[in-house]
Amino acid sequence: MFTLLHHPFCPQSRFIRLILGEHGLDVRPVEERVWERREAFLRLNPAGTTPVLIAEGIPAVPGAAIIADYLDETYGERVGERRLLPTSMPERIEVRRLMAWFNEKFFEEVSSPLVTERIYKRFMAEEIGGGPPETDVIRAARTNVRYHLAYIGWLARTRNYLAGDRLTYADLAAAAHLSAIDYLGDVPWAEDEAAKAWYARIKSRPSFRPLLSEWLAGVPASRTYVDLDF
Amino acid sequence: MFTLLHHPFCPQSRFIRLILGEHGLDVRPVEERVWERREAFLRLNPAGTTPVLIAEGIPAVPGAAIIADYLDETYGERVGERRLLPTSMPERIEVRRLMAWFNEKFFEEVSSPLVTERIYKRFMAEEIGGGPPETDVIRAARTNVRYHLAYIGWLARTRNYLAGDRLTYADLAAAAHLSAIDYLGDVPWAEDEAAKAWYARIKSRPSFRPLLSEWLAGVPASRTYVDLDF
Repeated sequence: MFTLLHHPFCPQSRFIRLILGEHGLDVRPVEERVWERREAFLRLNPAGTTPVLIAEGIPAVPGAAIIADYLDETYGERVGERRLLPTSMPERIEVRRLMAWFNEKFFEEVSSPLVTERIYKRFMAEEIGGGPPETDVIRAARTNVRYHLAYIGWLARTRNYLAGDRLTYADLAAAAHLSAIDYLGDVPWAEDEAAKAWYARIKSRPSFRPLLSEWLAGVPASRTYVDLDF
Repeated sequence: MFTLLHHPFCPQSRFIRLILGEHGLDVRPVEERVWERREAFLRLNPAGTTPVLIAEGIPAVPGAAIIADYLDETYGERVGERRLLPTSMPERIEVRRLMAWFNEKFFEEVSSPLVTERIYKRFMAEEIGGGPPETDVIRAARTNVRYHLAYIGWLARTRNYLAGDRLTYADLAAAAHLSAIDYLGDVPWAEDEAAKAWYARIKSRPSFRPLLSEWLAGVPASRTYVDLDF
């Protein structure tokens, strides 16, 4: 049994929840408000970021990329052909490239600013940056999402899944980040049919269900958030 | 034979050069000025960042973390006990945590702003952000480096190397980032004896020599940059 220190709308944490779900591993999610800089949390992860995975017999595992590696190295072999991080080197490189693309670049340019401005800032005290969202930041992120969606669409038209023939960490990372901002209605799905069709496939996986049941008081989900046929 | 698209003062690229050096692998370094957004370079790494490793038979390997994983998975086993990414899970987690700490957090808070302001901006055209350095940015980075140096010192006093008993990726990542800003004289070594003693050990390794021979026209190295007994 794992414990995951996370925030329900932290895109990196959603990525880890999808991986755990794909492996059928049970997890106890515990909400962490990183902006409160809780001392016990900082002892587990001095970087002060979610997600952090707690498992028996090993140190706390901090950060999406490190948790993904840990889960692959511990549980990957037993799923054989369905391994989310493929074993052939060219595929590994492409999966890791795309995983970093979403967890770093998409996060920085799109999902982190949107989730921070539109969700986290509601809960943050004013003296640490809470308050109304910055419309400039939101506007920039909504511009950025368009080229990312086009890139996803291009990959989805070229390949069966984003990194190749099979479902991999690349798909789960992309879908995790998109899901967080899809809740806010910030994905212009009409702009790319291929991206939308790919997302519909990922969204209908059982591992996705726990994400779709997240609801935030005062911030209603977009009309199509839970709709599998959006 | 590898080709490494890098910049001599890109801290992430220095990390990869140290790994290649430790493995005794030959590399042809090719300077890439990422701000010029060369089309052929963007085809190799759409994220537009250095380092990118080119090797025969596999796609271009983009980014320090992905290259480090690739090199470990390809050459790690043959160095046995001296493996830079240990095989036991608790050690792997700690090495990866510290590697990410330096390649992401230290990079963002210290080495990227200093190298960008003090080196890259000299070569950038004005319309893409070139010109004189922002003194505010430099001041903030020079404040941040102090807590990072104290953290390195704390690790070095607690352990033989930063992540444990043996030299690992954690040491090479930390030393790579420090070396780039040490050239600029931006490391307050006098503030932490343990950090300084640890760095002196890493700096005296043969893998470090190529970094110490980097000289930049118009930007003289700090007085102690090449001094092994600084």
